[in-house]
Amino acid sequence: MFTFYYAPHTCSLASHITLVDAGAPYELKRVDFGKTEQQSAAYLTINPKARVPAMVTPQGILTETPAMLAFIAQSFPQAQLAPINDPFAFAELQSFNSYLCSTAHVAHAHRMRGYRWADDPASFADMQRKVPKSVGACFELIESRMLTGPWVMGDSYTIADPYLFTLAQWLEADGVDLARIPRVIEHRSRMAERPSVKQAIAEELDG
Amino acid sequence: MFTFYYAPHTCSLASHITLVDAGAPYELKRVDFGKTEQQSAAYLTINPKARVPAMVTPQGILTETPAMLAFIAQSFPQAQLAPINDPFAFAELQSFNSYLCSTAHVAHAHRMRGYRWADDPASFADMQRKVPKSVGACFELIESRMLTGPWVMGDSYTIADPYLFTLAQWLEADGVDLARIPRVIEHRSRMAERPSVKQAIAEELDG
Repeated sequence: MFTFYYAPHTCSLASHITLVDAGAPYELKRVDFGKTEQQSAAYLTINPKARVPAMVTPQGILTETPAMLAFIAQSFPQAQLAPINDPFAFAELQSFNSYLCSTAHVAHAHRMRGYRWADDPASFADMQRKVPKSVGACFELIESRMLTGPWVMGDSYTIADPYLFTLAQWLEADGVDLARIPRVIEHRSRMAERPSVKQAIAEELDG
Repeated sequence: MFTFYYAPHTCSLASHITLVDAGAPYELKRVDFGKTEQQSAAYLTINPKARVPAMVTPQGILTETPAMLAFIAQSFPQAQLAPINDPFAFAELQSFNSYLCSTAHVAHAHRMRGYRWADDPASFADMQRKVPKSVGACFELIESRMLTGPWVMGDSYTIADPYLFTLAQWLEADGVDLARIPRVIEHRSRMAERPSVKQAIAEELDG
């Protein structure tokens, strides 16, 4: 049994969907960002980074989305969520996920979390103005060079798909021009129809 | 044979050291950042992200340090650079590397590459002023909670070690207070004595 710490509308959705896809046994614990519960002493013992997701497993606690996604895929091989026996194909998949966490998600974070990297409100406003362009550039690269189709890695659905879907939830709020990324939007629509995605979203909104 | 695209003083050093550690066959291609060669049409066919590292393999091209490190470890299992048969231990290792790429490296990048996320020179200056604190906070977390010792993951040297070593090269320039992270500095010193590290650095400076 895993205990999965999440917050709605954050990147934790990717791992949550993947837990459903894998048929993994899990219980959910919502971290209330409205009450800055992620900064509480109790939560910092789970994740000293004060972020979500975090997952308590029988072997210990895991954080960081790309690591968690690969762990779920490797722990539930029958779900076939990653090419775990092909190091190159697995690396291509991990490369995609690494780009999402270190470049696309980071660009997005400059809209609301500029205080991580600057102190002046004028800098925050400057960062916010750039988000449509910086996030847009990431998604245009995904559109043109990285999203194979129909799924991210091609014919097989993998752990990259819920991760892309999760970040694509934020495109409108980030001011990205959706007309420039039709394949990403089509992927997002197709993902939204999957039962695992519907289940994870419903559980987060109920929580 | 791999063809490894690198630039001195960048995060490509981590994968370069790992190629040496693995005993992998490789040839080096230096990307001249002074001539913005990473933006050239020729290089963009290798890596449309205009960054290093990139690695041409017989199966295709890989980018993104965490993916590349795991690929090298899985492709050369006899080098024992990662617990590739233990999904949880592998996930802990990947979690460490993911933190380096998405949080520690990103904090550092705000010193010289603020233009990725803002446009105003005043914002760049604000970001630069915060780097000692933001990068310092990452390394204090690594010091206190993440670096097991003597190596990152404990008794076994892994692909996390050259990656931490690589980012630790930038601490002085980032203005981080080294007195607060003695275990990181001791790790860096021990890494610097390894033949694979000396070889990779010598090859980059000769290139």
